[in-house]
Amino acid sequence: MAHPRLSLNQWTTRRWSLPEAIDGCARHGIGGIGVWREKLAEVPAAEARSRLEDAGLTVTSLCRGGFLTDTTTHTTALDDNRRAVDEAVAIGADLLVLVMGGLPNDSTDLAAARTAARNGLDALAPYAIDAGVRLALEPLHPMYAADRCVLSTLRQAVEWAEPFAPDAVGVCVDTFHIWWDPDVGQAIAEIGSADRLATYQVCDFLVPLPADVLLGRGYVGDGVIDFESLTRSVAATGYDGFVEVEIFNAEVWADDPDTVLTTVSERFDRLVAPYL
Amino acid sequence: MAHPRLSLNQWTTRRWSLPEAIDGCARHGIGGIGVWREKLAEVPAAEARSRLEDAGLTVTSLCRGGFLTDTTTHTTALDDNRRAVDEAVAIGADLLVLVMGGLPNDSTDLAAARTAARNGLDALAPYAIDAGVRLALEPLHPMYAADRCVLSTLRQAVEWAEPFAPDAVGVCVDTFHIWWDPDVGQAIAEIGSADRLATYQVCDFLVPLPADVLLGRGYVGDGVIDFESLTRSVAATGYDGFVEVEIFNAEVWADDPDTVLTTVSERFDRLVAPYL
Repeated sequence: MAHPRLSLNQWTTRRWSLPEAIDGCARHGIGGIGVWREKLAEVPAAEARSRLEDAGLTVTSLCRGGFLTDTTTHTTALDDNRRAVDEAVAIGADLLVLVMGGLPNDSTDLAAARTAARNGLDALAPYAIDAGVRLALEPLHPMYAADRCVLSTLRQAVEWAEPFAPDAVGVCVDTFHIWWDPDVGQAIAEIGSADRLATYQVCDFLVPLPADVLLGRGYVGDGVIDFESLTRSVAATGYDGFVEVEIFNAEVWADDPDTVLTTVSERFDRLVAPYL
Repeated sequence: MAHPRLSLNQWTTRRWSLPEAIDGCARHGIGGIGVWREKLAEVPAAEARSRLEDAGLTVTSLCRGGFLTDTTTHTTALDDNRRAVDEAVAIGADLLVLVMGGLPNDSTDLAAARTAARNGLDALAPYAIDAGVRLALEPLHPMYAADRCVLSTLRQAVEWAEPFAPDAVGVCVDTFHIWWDPDVGQAIAEIGSADRLATYQVCDFLVPLPADVLLGRGYVGDGVIDFESLTRSVAATGYDGFVEVEIFNAEVWADDPDTVLTTVSERFDRLVAPYL
């Protein structure tokens, strides 16, 4: 049996369809799953929900909405985000992770992109609140600030969440993105004090990074992150929810997903669970 | 003639020896040069100094010392840093740039590496003060936190510099490393208020990054950085020194260095100088 707080973020087993990932979690005794919309789209939502329920799986997040930095596509992006909220409701997920988006094409106006993202959040939040789906702001590593996410630190995420109720907008703490931050311990404590720690995601930071830096995420223990100190900071906030393992890595994706889950579970038991 | 505040960081023209770079600056009317120790080592220091003086070049920095995060090699590293201070004196450079170093081999203890770096700075500073050489702490982009520099933000650099007099320890503001920081404007203002803005380096951040992320630096204007807002922040501090152009880029290095200097100078005039 896997640790009771382990959740599989399904992009870790990207080769698997959602039904295959659900069956895989069952085989490995994993109790939570972070569902990706790309995989959910392949299955009727009602079927997905009944499969998830039959397997006794908690949906720990739906990944993902966001991409709200381009004012020229704001309306389309907001429509898509509202659909994401609907999908979360349909499968019983109470959390939607948001990746806010990078600089619009040919723009270098980072301040404007950040303002657009905050305006998008303003526009989306009421719909999510009505639906009972919490939004999780995920700061991404600064190396993705231009092409993926202008929200770059936990402190910045706290600031962006502040106008909203804690159960409306929380923060996703992903070790890969925030381990380097000189303020990380204090920032996690502040997120906890504000009741905004929405989810904790773990994977390691590989050195050297691969050619595609998006795929520099490794199994816990294969990189440079100190999981003890980060996990202790999260535990100190009182967070008692699931911990998602989310790995983007070409070699992991090429491997047999059952082998991957065995490694994920073993590393979690040894390097994360003791500090939860 | 190049802009009077343009300085060539000589790693931009890596194919050139120091004498060649000095001659190149003269041909292009560039008045400042950031010297690298690897290039200086190929020339007797007295000869280097007289060539620099004959060309009327201001040495805007010596690059670089640091790499003080590994306690097992601290003594050796400190010796090397003291030699770097001596070299700065020998060529009339009043600024030594420090890159503090990454995690020691197989360590994930980022906090310990940061403490070691600060202890190293404590040990080095008196020697540099006696020699009249200012140390410039350079925060590097967080994607290098593991393998190159555990000093990751301008705010952290201000904190590390604080125990020392402003003319003993300053901060190097390099656009590539800090452009993404949500606090960048305020941090530059704080550095200015503390009289610690030691040098301003410019180059662009390329997207996508190349396979070796160390080489993701491009000509000003080729990437995603808003040079107007950063340069205005620097100017608002009252900084009136040279601005170094420092580009690590395989294509730039492969090109004819005179062509490179023409591009460097043209981009500087158009995209940096108007905001100085």
